[in-house]
Amino acid sequence: MIAPAGKLGIEIKVLAETQDSPAAEATTLVGDFTDFETVLTFAKSVDVITFDHEHVPLAILQQLEQQGISVQPSSRALAHAQNKLVMRKALEKMGAPSPIWKEVSTALELDQFINEHGPEVVVKTPIGGYDGKGVRVVSSSEQVSDWLADPMLASLGGSLLVEQKVSFKRELAQLCARNPNGDFASWPVVETRQKNGVCSEVLSPAPNISSEMSREAVKIARLISESLGVTGNLAVEMFETNQGELLVNELAMRPHNSGHFTIEGSATSQFEQHLRAVLNLPLGKTDPIRPVAVMANLLGVSNSQDLLANYDKVMSSFPEVNIHFYGKAPRLGRKLGHITVVGDDVETCLRTAEGARNQLNN
Amino acid sequence: MIAPAGKLGIEIKVLAETQDSPAAEATTLVGDFTDFETVLTFAKSVDVITFDHEHVPLAILQQLEQQGISVQPSSRALAHAQNKLVMRKALEKMGAPSPIWKEVSTALELDQFINEHGPEVVVKTPIGGYDGKGVRVVSSSEQVSDWLADPMLASLGGSLLVEQKVSFKRELAQLCARNPNGDFASWPVVETRQKNGVCSEVLSPAPNISSEMSREAVKIARLISESLGVTGNLAVEMFETNQGELLVNELAMRPHNSGHFTIEGSATSQFEQHLRAVLNLPLGKTDPIRPVAVMANLLGVSNSQDLLANYDKVMSSFPEVNIHFYGKAPRLGRKLGHITVVGDDVETCLRTAEGARNQLNN
Repeated sequence: MIAPAGKLGIEIKVLAETQDSPAAEATTLVGDFTDFETVLTFAKSVDVITFDHEHVPLAILQQLEQQGISVQPSSRALAHAQNKLVMRKALEKMGAPSPIWKEVSTALELDQFINEHGPEVVVKTPIGGYDGKGVRVVSSSEQVSDWLADPMLASLGGSLLVEQKVSFKRELAQLCARNPNGDFASWPVVETRQKNGVCSEVLSPAPNISSEMSREAVKIARLISESLGVTGNLAVEMFETNQGELLVNELAMRPHNSGHFTIEGSATSQFEQHLRAVLNLPLGKTDPIRPVAVMANLLGVSNSQDLLANYDKVMSSFPEVNIHFYGKAPRLGRKLGHITVVGDDVETCLRTAEGARNQLNN
Repeated sequence: MIAPAGKLGIEIKVLAETQDSPAAEATTLVGDFTDFETVLTFAKSVDVITFDHEHVPLAILQQLEQQGISVQPSSRALAHAQNKLVMRKALEKMGAPSPIWKEVSTALELDQFINEHGPEVVVKTPIGGYDGKGVRVVSSSEQVSDWLADPMLASLGGSLLVEQKVSFKRELAQLCARNPNGDFASWPVVETRQKNGVCSEVLSPAPNISSEMSREAVKIARLISESLGVTGNLAVEMFETNQGELLVNELAMRPHNSGHFTIEGSATSQFEQHLRAVLNLPLGKTDPIRPVAVMANLLGVSNSQDLLANYDKVMSSFPEVNIHFYGKAPRLGRKLGHITVVGDDVETCLRTAEGARNQLNN
């Protein structure tokens, strides 16, 4: 968000965990985001606070709000991105489509669910998971006995979430933004491809999607953002089932990996839009710059990788590619950057992005 | 350049005159760019030094180069952007088209030139001018008697440059980039419109320009950048004369006001391209994003202007407009930001940009 803040003439300050984070340029305070005094000190230095992850403890945000500090999205909304059980309950209440799910806190309850909806089910810790962490596909409660026996289960939300294992054709994501004034804007629904539970590629728009399903995706995202009072970005990750249904999988309320393509692919990037939305400015246009955009994540291939070794070769071989590096130390599987290609057809864009990524990693 | 450096994973450091400059985020040293020790200390902290203005004294840059520091563009090239007499002599030698000009150091020499090429001529101080400063249209040497009598004339270059006053149809600018490897890339030639000697609007491409003249503009820019060994951006400001000739007016070797439209209007912005070029990375593509781009400068309308007063109204009335604020204090005539509109036809883009600017200023 630092770059669009600069463009918009907005002063941005960052509370970062370390001095050398990718947000170093705008870091004004280094400290622990789970420490109330740290977050309060930071919050008092700005007009509005917002997030690039959802892990700031809700209790801290609630105390800030009680002191009159503008937290966007609010703790009330953010609760649904922090806690998957809270999310499932709210989705059910508003009528948004979920996989079959249940709150369980004993092996017996879990095994009953497996009997009914198995043989395999998906068990999730309600809070703290991301990029596939805190999620297990199991066929018996024994496979999460460590979670069930964990004295920390209370801190994980008190119970576990179990969901049917959905047979899906592919995964989609609908990114949108809403400001406190109630203005709403959405980007095209995208296809997200995962490897080992981590986003690998994003195709915008989702190839061959029907206009009916596109409209349905926006309708679901709008229902959620309005029902929960979301301000800023909302990413709704969904399954497109083999039966042609959409089921909500996860929510995020911040700039999201499924929207990185918007930097080059959209009239307004998700980063600028999130800033506009949390500041209650009018939202920017979300028209695509070109018919298609493809984003490919650069995931660390080793702990000693030299990302820059082939940098100029790739720039030269693939001049149409936009490479983004986050300035993070390499680590196997870590998101170190991404590549975006815009164009007229998805096959060409995908081939180009993958070609560039392969050359960078070699 | 801070934003594209972030994207490319390049660490950027800035020597700034004040702590609160628009480059504050990346400022690592505050000091005087005319002080050798200050510039040397800064230069030793980076791999390559480059510029966002051309006023660092040549003698300092030459000393850095003697110490093996990579200065891009080199002092040899930059001399031609710093000193208009040096430029005119080099253009003549390489065969690039200039207005009729002469080096003069006495009233007599100047009046002779006026007799031959008047009634009006343009007198310029060889160094230190920008945005119309250091330039006078005169019909008698008395009108620059202060310059001629100035004991500082030596520091202004030792003599004055006098040029015929060209009857021109419009002003054009050709922006291009070249890296030390010799790779060359150019953007479309643009029309630049000035008010009181300051750039007011830029239209890309220059409306109704013939393909012959477009090619000629690139040919001139390429000749200059190669003859002078320019690295980084080169902006060649030109007159299109009433006779359909192109004559070179000024040179700049850095991101230039005539190229701000490239942020939204081009596959690669001039800021990213300048970084790539000075780092000897392959140059990015310069294809236009949309057929037309129009840039309108936001010049301060008073010293107490509140630029943000109508910010949200303008965003709402003109959602297709990209507003850039530089975070500078308002001052009458100061460049405080700019607006870019991309689209299919220049009239619509221009009307939109001017409408948004008027609303911001009201």
